[in-house]
Amino acid sequence: MQRTLFTDDHETFRALVRDVVANEVVPHYAAWEKAGRLPRSFFELLGSLGLLGMAVPEEYGGGGRPDYRYNVVLQEEAARALVTLGTVRTQLDVVLPYFLAYADAGQRRRWFPGLASGKLLTAVAMTEPGTGSDLAGIRTTAVRDGDAYVLNGAKTFITGGLLADLVIVVARTASDPGNRRAGLTLLVVEDGMPGFTRGRVLDKLGIKVQDTVELAFDDVRVPVANRLGEEGAAFSYLGHNLPQERMTVAVGSVAQTRAALDTTVAYVKEREVFGRTVASFQHTKFELAAVSAELEAAQSLLDRAVLELVEGRLSGADAAKAKLFCTEAQARAVDRCLQLFGGYGYLLEYPIARLYADARITRIYAGTSEVMKVIIARSLGL
Amino acid sequence: MQRTLFTDDHETFRALVRDVVANEVVPHYAAWEKAGRLPRSFFELLGSLGLLGMAVPEEYGGGGRPDYRYNVVLQEEAARALVTLGTVRTQLDVVLPYFLAYADAGQRRRWFPGLASGKLLTAVAMTEPGTGSDLAGIRTTAVRDGDAYVLNGAKTFITGGLLADLVIVVARTASDPGNRRAGLTLLVVEDGMPGFTRGRVLDKLGIKVQDTVELAFDDVRVPVANRLGEEGAAFSYLGHNLPQERMTVAVGSVAQTRAALDTTVAYVKEREVFGRTVASFQHTKFELAAVSAELEAAQSLLDRAVLELVEGRLSGADAAKAKLFCTEAQARAVDRCLQLFGGYGYLLEYPIARLYADARITRIYAGTSEVMKVIIARSLGL
Amino acid sequence: MQRTLFTDDHETFRALVRDVVANEVVPHYAAWEKAGRLPRSFFELLGSLGLLGMAVPEEYGGGGRPDYRYNVVLQEEAARALVTLGTVRTQLDVVLPYFLAYADAGQRRRWFPGLASGKLLTAVAMTEPGTGSDLAGIRTTAVRDGDAYVLNGAKTFITGGLLADLVIVVARTASDPGNRRAGLTLLVVEDGMPGFTRGRVLDKLGIKVQDTVELAFDDVRVPVANRLGEEGAAFSYLGHNLPQERMTVAVGSVAQTRAALDTTVAYVKEREVFGRTVASFQHTKFELAAVSAELEAAQSLLDRAVLELVEGRLSGADAAKAKLFCTEAQARAVDRCLQLFGGYGYLLEYPIARLYADARITRIYAGTSEVMKVIIARSLGL
Amino acid sequence: MQRTLFTDDHETFRALVRDVVANEVVPHYAAWEKAGRLPRSFFELLGSLGLLGMAVPEEYGGGGRPDYRYNVVLQEEAARALVTLGTVRTQLDVVLPYFLAYADAGQRRRWFPGLASGKLLTAVAMTEPGTGSDLAGIRTTAVRDGDAYVLNGAKTFITGGLLADLVIVVARTASDPGNRRAGLTLLVVEDGMPGFTRGRVLDKLGIKVQDTVELAFDDVRVPVANRLGEEGAAFSYLGHNLPQERMTVAVGSVAQTRAALDTTVAYVKEREVFGRTVASFQHTKFELAAVSAELEAAQSLLDRAVLELVEGRLSGADAAKAKLFCTEAQARAVDRCLQLFGGYGYLLEYPIARLYADARITRIYAGTSEVMKVIIARSLGL
Repeated sequence: MQRTLFTDDHETFRALVRDVVANEVVPHYAAWEKAGRLPRSFFELLGSLGLLGMAVPEEYGGGGRPDYRYNVVLQEEAARALVTLGTVRTQLDVVLPYFLAYADAGQRRRWFPGLASGKLLTAVAMTEPGTGSDLAGIRTTAVRDGDAYVLNGAKTFITGGLLADLVIVVARTASDPGNRRAGLTLLVVEDGMPGFTRGRVLDKLGIKVQDTVELAFDDVRVPVANRLGEEGAAFSYLGHNLPQERMTVAVGSVAQTRAALDTTVAYVKEREVFGRTVASFQHTKFELAAVSAELEAAQSLLDRAVLELVEGRLSGADAAKAKLFCTEAQARAVDRCLQLFGGYGYLLEYPIARLYADARITRIYAGTSEVMKVIIARSLGL
Repeated sequence: MQRTLFTDDHETFRALVRDVVANEVVPHYAAWEKAGRLPRSFFELLGSLGLLGMAVPEEYGGGGRPDYRYNVVLQEEAARALVTLGTVRTQLDVVLPYFLAYADAGQRRRWFPGLASGKLLTAVAMTEPGTGSDLAGIRTTAVRDGDAYVLNGAKTFITGGLLADLVIVVARTASDPGNRRAGLTLLVVEDGMPGFTRGRVLDKLGIKVQDTVELAFDDVRVPVANRLGEEGAAFSYLGHNLPQERMTVAVGSVAQTRAALDTTVAYVKEREVFGRTVASFQHTKFELAAVSAELEAAQSLLDRAVLELVEGRLSGADAAKAKLFCTEAQARAVDRCLQLFGGYGYLLEYPIARLYADARITRIYAGTSEVMKVIIARSLGL
Repeated sequence: MQRTLFTDDHETFRALVRDVVANEVVPHYAAWEKAGRLPRSFFELLGSLGLLGMAVPEEYGGGGRPDYRYNVVLQEEAARALVTLGTVRTQLDVVLPYFLAYADAGQRRRWFPGLASGKLLTAVAMTEPGTGSDLAGIRTTAVRDGDAYVLNGAKTFITGGLLADLVIVVARTASDPGNRRAGLTLLVVEDGMPGFTRGRVLDKLGIKVQDTVELAFDDVRVPVANRLGEEGAAFSYLGHNLPQERMTVAVGSVAQTRAALDTTVAYVKEREVFGRTVASFQHTKFELAAVSAELEAAQSLLDRAVLELVEGRLSGADAAKAKLFCTEAQARAVDRCLQLFGGYGYLLEYPIARLYADARITRIYAGTSEVMKVIIARSLGL
Repeated sequence: MQRTLFTDDHETFRALVRDVVANEVVPHYAAWEKAGRLPRSFFELLGSLGLLGMAVPEEYGGGGRPDYRYNVVLQEEAARALVTLGTVRTQLDVVLPYFLAYADAGQRRRWFPGLASGKLLTAVAMTEPGTGSDLAGIRTTAVRDGDAYVLNGAKTFITGGLLADLVIVVARTASDPGNRRAGLTLLVVEDGMPGFTRGRVLDKLGIKVQDTVELAFDDVRVPVANRLGEEGAAFSYLGHNLPQERMTVAVGSVAQTRAALDTTVAYVKEREVFGRTVASFQHTKFELAAVSAELEAAQSLLDRAVLELVEGRLSGADAAKAKLFCTEAQARAVDRCLQLFGGYGYLLEYPIARLYADARITRIYAGTSEVMKVIIARSLGL
C-alpha cells in the first residue's frame, strides 16, 4: 500500500541520503564492522552535508527542521542498502533530543554547532551494571561541591561511548527512600575530564558497526554549567524521551525487515536447488508472503505511530506497542528469510546473516519486550 | 492510537447503529443463534432505519452514500456488543456490490427498493461441492434457450441461502478448454422458480447465527432479464469484488478481536483465583499486552486498506495481506483470551467461547490463508 | 518409531476394545453427542465385557489388573475411530483411583461390584464456582453431626455429574487460617440423598458427549460411613491422584492428535482442488510433516511418562510437563489439520471439527497450562 | 524423568569425558573460537585417552565398541560445560562411519590407527557451490586413468576441511541422464596431493570453533586404492549414513538446549532487577517451564531415536523427525532463554549468546528443516 507519511521535502532528503549511503557507507561498511565503530570522519561528512543537524536551529548551523521523519528516512535508506548508520542513529534519535529540549542558552552556543557539524560525538549513559531497565535504581552519584558536581559511578551498555566527546550521564543528586524516581539529574561529561575513563568495549553478537562500552566516573568534577535541565528532573526527562527512543528501534526493525524480505526475494529467484529456483517452491512463496503481510502490518502500525510522534501526541503505551510488535515481527521475519538461504544464510558475507544477528538486540534494548508489556498492560488498566 | 478513518457522518451513523444493536440484536441474539438464522423482520427493521441501503441510490429509497466505512461501523458496533449481524454483513458487503455494479436499469427498478428496505434478502452462490476456492472450476451450467437460461448444478456453503429471495448464481454459459476462466455468467435466481431447491442446512462449528446451505438447480429457467452484467464476464466481476469480500472478513476479525480483548480485560479484573484477581498475575498482563499490540497492528493495517478500498485503489494483493494478517492475528488473540477465562471460557454462555468458535472460519472463507499467500506471493514476483 | 510401552496382554485388550468401539460406539456417537451424555446402558455393556473393572480386585468382579496402560488403550482405540469414550474416561482414570486407594472394607463391598459392572456411575466434585484450580480455596462445608456430616455448598464443572450414582465431594470439615490446605475431606454423596440436587447442564464449546453439570448440596446428611479415607486428608489425596488425572488428559490429547493427523492425511489424498489433490501441494506436505514430527515427540514424552506412572514413580512436575506439552501440541496440530480441510473443516459432520472443538478444553481442565507451568517452574527451583 | 538410554559403561565414559572437558576444553575454548578451529594437539590428546577410537576395532588401537551412545555422551558433556567439541563431533559422528563401513583391509591398516590416535584428521566433502542439499546434482568429476582417478571440482561448506589429512570426496565417476543418483563414488583425498587446495575459510555467524572451508580439486590424481567402497555406490552409502548424521545434529541440539536452560535458570536466580531476582517474576517462571517441557519432549524423542539407531533400525523418516523437532525446539528455547538475560544475553562473553548463534545452523546443515519435511511427508504417503 501507498505510504502517506512523507512529503516532497522528505523525498528530496531521501534522494540525498540514498546517494550518501551508496557512496560513503556501502564501500566501507565491512571495514567499519571489523573496526567495531564508525570513523569520526563519517560524522563530519554527514555534518557537512547537513544530515546531522536537520533538527538543530539554523542559528547554530542546523537545518531548523525538527521533524522525526528525516530520521526515519536515514534508517530506511541505510537498510535499503543492507547496512545501518550505526551510532549516527543513537546520536540523532536518542541523544540529540536531550540537548534540544534541555540545553540552556550557553550550552546551545557551546555544543549545537558541533552537534550539527559532526564535530561533537555524543552518548547517553543510563544503564548501570546492576540496573538494566530499572532507571529508578541508578546508583551513580553526583554530589554538589561549589560550582561542580563530583560524579562517581559506573555505566555499561553505552552505545557510542568509545568516541563520545559529550556523554549525558544520569546521576543521582539526591536520594529519597520514598520516591526512587526523585533526585536524578543529567550531567554532560566531556571527553578528557579527569576521572572519566572508558572501560571495556563489549563484544556483541551483532550490531558490530556500533561500539558499546563501559564508562567509569571516579571523582569527576562536572561543572554545574554542564547540567542539562533542572536538578532532580531527569526521570521525567527520560520518560519524555523514551517514546522516541523506542520508536527509533521500531523504525529500524521495520526497515531492516523490509531489507531482509527484499534481499531474500531476490536471492530465491536466482538461486537454484534440485534443478529449479528456490522461488518456485510453494513453501518459499508462502513463507515470503507471510513475511510480507506481517511487514505491511508493522509498517502500518509504525507509520501511524511516527505521525503521532511528529504531532507530539504519541503516548508511551503506543510507542511500546509499536516497539513490541515491530521488533517481534522482525525476529520472526528475519529468521524465516535466513532459512531460505540454506547454508549461505549462515555466512557473514551474506547480509541476511548480519540482519539476523543485529535483529536479536531490538527486543532488548531501549526497554525489553517484557518492559513494553508492562507499559501496555498498565494502559489497559491491568 | 487515534483512528483517522471516520468522519462525523460515520460517527452519527455509529450512534444509531449502537442503539439498534443494543435494543434490537442483543436481547434476541441467543434465540437467533439457536434458530440458526436471523429473522426476516430484522432485515425489515434495519431497512426501515436506513441501515441497509446506505449505498443504494436515493431514487430507489437508499441513502445514496456508497461508502464502505458505513459497513465497517456496522460490524464494529455489533462486535462491541459481543454479537454479530450475521447475514446482514454478507448481504451488504458481499452481495449488494454485485447488484450496484452490474444491475441494468430494469433490474435496478425491480430490486433496489427491496434491497434498501430489507424486503429482499440475497445470497451469492459461487462455491460448488467440488470447487472450493477454485472458481475457474465451476461446473454449474446455464444453457441459453430462447429468452431464458436453463440452469443446472449444485452449490454449497451458501451463506444466507435459506431465506434468500434473490440468489446470484455463478454459472458456466460457455466452456473453453484453453481458458477455464472464460464463459462464466451471473444469473439471479428468484425464490420460487421451478427447479430451484434448498438442500441441507450445514451444521457448523460456529457462526451459528448465520445460515449456510446447499442449493440445487434442476432445469431452472432463469429469464435473460435476470442476467447480471455481460454474459461470460463473471470471472472478472468476481475478481473485482473479491477484495471487498476479503476486507469484510478482515474488518470482522479485527472488530471481534477487539471485543475479545475488551471482554477479557473486564473479566480478569473481576475474577479472582488464589485470593487475587486474574488481572494481578504478570502472565495475564503480558498476554493481554501482547494481544493489544497485535490488535493495534491489525487495526492499523486494516484502516489503511479500508481507506484504499474507499478510494478505489486497493489492490488484490493488499486486500489479501489484510485478510491474511488480521484473521491470523484474530486466531492467536482469541485463543489467548479464552485461556484466561479458564473453564468458563469453554462455556457457550460466555461470549469468548462464541468468539473462539466464530473465529475459526475467518482463515478459511472468502479465500483461505493459503489462497491469500498465493496472491501475495505473486505480487512479490514469486 | 516402534512403541515399547505395551505387552501382548495390552494388545489383546486393544483388539477387544477396537471391536467394541466400532460396533457399540461409532454407530451411536452422533446421537450421544446430541443427547449430551452417554447412556447408562453403555456403561453396563462395558462392565459386562470387563472393560470397566480391569483395576478392580477380582473378588469384587474386577480384572485385578491395576495397570494404567489399559486405560491408555481405551482412549487410543476410541480416538482411532474418531470418537471418545466421554465420561468413561473420567470414571476410570480420575474417579476410580480414589475408590481403589481409599475405600475401606465396607465401602469396597458396597461399591466395587457396581464400579466393575457399570451399574454405579461416578463423579468427583472438586471445583466450586469461585475456586477454579485453587483447591485450597474450597468453601463447601461438612459439619459432623452424630454419625453423619451435614454438607452444604455448590460445585460446578462436574464431569459426569448428571448420571452419577456416587459423587466424591471435596468438603471442608475444619478450617485453619494458617493452613488453607488442611481440613479438607472426601465424602461420597449418593444419588437420592435429600438435599442433593443437580443444577444446570453446562453448554460447552465441545466435548458434547460428556455432561458437565452444577451440583448443589443443601444440608445433605452424608453418613460417616461414606467418608473416603481420613478426615482432613483430602488435599494430600488430591495431590496424589492429580498426576494421573493430568496424564489422562495428555493421553487423550496425543491420541486425538494422531486421529486428526490420520484423518487429514486420508482427506488430502482424496480431495481435489485446482485439478490436483490437496496432498500434492508442498504446503500440505510440510504442514503434515511438521504435525507428524511434533506428534512423535509428544508420543515419546507421553509413553515415558506413562511408564513412570505405571511404575509408581512419576513426579508431579513430570506429569505437568507431559500435560503441558501434549495439550499445546494438540492445539497446534489440530488447528493445522483443520485448515487443510478448507470449508469442510468447519462442518460438524467432519470429525476434524469436533476434534478442534474438543481440543480447546485440554489446556484448561485438570489444571490449566498456567498451573502446569507453576508446578514445573517450582521443580526448576524457581 | 529418568533416562534409560545409558548403561554403566556409558556413565564411566561420561565421567572421563566430563573431566577432560573441564580441564582440556573449557580453559582453551575462547582461544579456539578466536582461532576458528581446534588445535591438532587436542585431537591427539583425545586419541591418547581413547575417546576418538571407541568405535574403531581394537586391532587398530581402538576401543572396539561401536556404540553411538558414546558419541552422545561426548556432546552432552561438552554442552554441560557450555562448550562444544567442534570438529571432533563431525569426525566421529559423520566421517568415521564411512571409514568403518567401507574401508577395505588395506585402508584399514593405513588409516584406522591414525583415526583412533587422533593423528589423522578428516572431513567429508559433499556439498558444492551449486548443489545445497541436492546430492544428486554433484558435478565434481573423477575420471579413471590407469590406477588413479583424476579429480576435478569444487566443494564448499566443508567442516574440518582446514586441517583434514583425509577428505572423503563425493565425485561423479559416471553420468546417467536417466538416473542422477547413479555414478557417484567416494574418493579419499590426502593432504598434500598435487592439485588439492583449500580455499577460503568461511566466516560464519556462529560455531566459530569449527572451521568451514572451500576445497578445490584441480587434476588431483587419487589412487584407486583410495576409493572407499564400490565405484558408483556413493549415493546409497550417503543415504545409509545420513540418518546418523542427522541424529548427531539432533543430539547436539538437545544437549545445547539443556545447557541453555541450565545456565538461564542459574542466571535468573542470581540476577536482580527492580529490586528482586529475575527468577521471581511469573513471566520468567513460565518461560522456563515451557522450555523445560519442550526439552523433555525433545529428549524423549531423541532417546528413543538414538536407541533405534544403536539397534540398527532407525528409519530415515524417524531420523528426520528427530532432527526437525529437536532443532526447531532448540531455536525456540534458546531464543527464550537469551531474552531473560536482557542486554547481557547479547554479549559474547555470556555463553547464551554463543548458544544462540550456534543454534541457527542446526535447522540448516545435514539437511534443512525443509528437506526433513520432504522426507517425513513421503513416509506419510504424501
